[in-house]
Amino acid sequence: MSTTEISLDVPLLLQQIRELGAIGHDPAQGGRARIALTDDEKAGRDRLVHWMRELDLEVRVDHVGNIFGILPAASVEGHARPLMMGSHIDTVRNAGALDGCYGVLAGLAVVRAYRSAGCLPQRAIVVAAFTNEEGLRYQPDMMGSLVYAGGLDVQTTLDTIGTDGTRFGDELERIGYAGDMAPGAMVPNEYIELHIEQGPVLESEGQFIGVVENLQGISWQKVVINGMANHAGTTPTRLRHDAGYAAAACIAHLREQVVAAAPDTTLATVGSLRFEPDVINVIPRKAMFTVDLRDPDERRLQAAEQRFADFLVVLAEREGVQIETERLVRFEPVVFDARLADRIEAAALRRGLSHVRMTSGAGHDAQMMARIAPSAMIFVPSRSGISHNPSEYTDDEQLAMGAQVLLDVVQDCLAAR
Amino acid sequence: MSTTEISLDVPLLLQQIRELGAIGHDPAQGGRARIALTDDEKAGRDRLVHWMRELDLEVRVDHVGNIFGILPAASVEGHARPLMMGSHIDTVRNAGALDGCYGVLAGLAVVRAYRSAGCLPQRAIVVAAFTNEEGLRYQPDMMGSLVYAGGLDVQTTLDTIGTDGTRFGDELERIGYAGDMAPGAMVPNEYIELHIEQGPVLESEGQFIGVVENLQGISWQKVVINGMANHAGTTPTRLRHDAGYAAAACIAHLREQVVAAAPDTTLATVGSLRFEPDVINVIPRKAMFTVDLRDPDERRLQAAEQRFADFLVVLAEREGVQIETERLVRFEPVVFDARLADRIEAAALRRGLSHVRMTSGAGHDAQMMARIAPSAMIFVPSRSGISHNPSEYTDDEQLAMGAQVLLDVVQDCLAAR
Repeated sequence: MSTTEISLDVPLLLQQIRELGAIGHDPAQGGRARIALTDDEKAGRDRLVHWMRELDLEVRVDHVGNIFGILPAASVEGHARPLMMGSHIDTVRNAGALDGCYGVLAGLAVVRAYRSAGCLPQRAIVVAAFTNEEGLRYQPDMMGSLVYAGGLDVQTTLDTIGTDGTRFGDELERIGYAGDMAPGAMVPNEYIELHIEQGPVLESEGQFIGVVENLQGISWQKVVINGMANHAGTTPTRLRHDAGYAAAACIAHLREQVVAAAPDTTLATVGSLRFEPDVINVIPRKAMFTVDLRDPDERRLQAAEQRFADFLVVLAEREGVQIETERLVRFEPVVFDARLADRIEAAALRRGLSHVRMTSGAGHDAQMMARIAPSAMIFVPSRSGISHNPSEYTDDEQLAMGAQVLLDVVQDCLAAR
Repeated sequence: MSTTEISLDVPLLLQQIRELGAIGHDPAQGGRARIALTDDEKAGRDRLVHWMRELDLEVRVDHVGNIFGILPAASVEGHARPLMMGSHIDTVRNAGALDGCYGVLAGLAVVRAYRSAGCLPQRAIVVAAFTNEEGLRYQPDMMGSLVYAGGLDVQTTLDTIGTDGTRFGDELERIGYAGDMAPGAMVPNEYIELHIEQGPVLESEGQFIGVVENLQGISWQKVVINGMANHAGTTPTRLRHDAGYAAAACIAHLREQVVAAAPDTTLATVGSLRFEPDVINVIPRKAMFTVDLRDPDERRLQAAEQRFADFLVVLAEREGVQIETERLVRFEPVVFDARLADRIEAAALRRGLSHVRMTSGAGHDAQMMARIAPSAMIFVPSRSGISHNPSEYTDDEQLAMGAQVLLDVVQDCLAAR
């Protein structure tokens, strides 16, 4: 079988992205919402399964609702070591149409290319759509792939209570996606995830393809500073215990000290901050804020956490405030498979596409799958780095290039074995 | 007439403070609310007028509801140059019992001392309760004294629409306090206001009496920073336009540069701050905060405003954010009458009471009255500097000392002419 026989139907891929994006669409806001296990998300699943069946794929659903469409191998031996591609089709509120869906539907496009060519691959190809990647309704996020990789047990997952008081298992039954396959039953030979960057790096550097080498470690904490409320006009600065100023000093420290210590890799974000009582002429009694720290290197991430923790001790003493921290999320960095990354880079080179080795800043299903299989990711540019927003946008041409690189890498992987 | 004949009924003063404090009391919260021109505030006015009538004072009410209780002079000549004492009896929500009320009721106690001694003063004594000092329902605050001093015209005041949509003039009519006296009709020879400090200075320095020499200028502004929302994990620091970080840098600048330039006099407070979208893993698109700057010296206050404004220009350029400011309040500093301050200091000395010359950080009716008459204030300690709160507290003994100094100063002023 020559690789030149296999070619993508790009218009159909783009049309399916639009069709899936219309499910759960909210005309008022401009975006769409297919929150995990809601009616709208079920409608998205139904459409995906319909498209899988159109391609005569074997559709399997596991105990936590992960969906797999399987293109069989040309030989029995090839069936045991499938190649898996995928991502997710659930969304945040008021989302764009590309996050997750692009990777799943590009996987279908690759499979379709084989079907259209009338040939079967050397090994089975599996297109996966993992449940609840976004984690809005049920925590944690990347739930389906985490369970699939053995990082969370099925019963705990089914018993998870959502932000709306519903039980995950009940909602999964209700929408008809409580499948009979055990998570992890098919261990792929490799896992490849194509995704929009959701960041501005490719666009700002004028590159078409991101060869994702690793995924940042993520450290989320909540910080509560208790000071003393007092009159803004009558309290001398030396007698203040200003929780608001202390919070601002933390934010400045994160940028000016913690990030500055490793400016190319450590990221620090304070996205949420509230004061109490939040009145113009009252010194804040309380400030609550979140800290999002990321670094692709675990030791540097730990150093950033430690530097910030040390500052809190000094600050509490200096300002006479009490500071409490609570860990919310902690994921260690993931290093993707070097050989897969090389294949992605080689594919981009062969197509003459500019590319750059990069780190994924966001979490993805690939970071979970990396626990059980060599994994890698391919990024395409996101305009202005915007995602989780109706303005999320990637040129059709760039979407096509990404899918082409995915197909090339799949063929390369299959040919190599 | 010998000054030793005139003496205060301290238990009755304390009882009246408690009685007035019970009007509008909220047992659930522990405080009381007599917001200007509400039914509860009318009940407070009625009680005050009742007490004025018990002392056989002439009660006059002006067009904006300011209440005056007049003890006539022993001679006709003395009637033309009255001595005025007073403050206000309206409150914030969930207030203490002392703010404002202490000064008004101590004024009544001074008048009562004359009545009990059976003698009339050399000049008339007026006890004033100004309308809407707190400014919660109708802005600006210190409204009644501002009108009385000619700083705001009557019709504008009557037409003011409150936060609840009501018209000031209608509510004033409704509670029966739209009086017939023209504001400013009685120009006092001097105005003396006794008040709790509402700050921690006297307590922390172990002083009983604050001789208030001046009152800080106040500059309030609202700052809105527009940056760009982006993913916390995928946006390199160099590509961020983080409105939240920029706000934190402003708060740090205010403390570390603006206040540090005049640490004994300039105060800066950011009491209110909000982020949008206020999500843990999204770089804030928008930050809105308030800035409260105070200094007793107008040039220094202007310098502080300028230093901050200069920083905003640099910051906007450096962070690639857009910054808008809106002036909310601006009062120039007020210097009180030096001779009255000397009299207060002398009275404290004679009584053997420790005392300190100080600046008022909060706004008071005295700052408005200073526009039309020599004015001064006497402060007594506030425990922990707490005010506008049910925990507001001053020892009975300290309240008695403050009233005694007020009586002494009144007698001194009257004897001197």
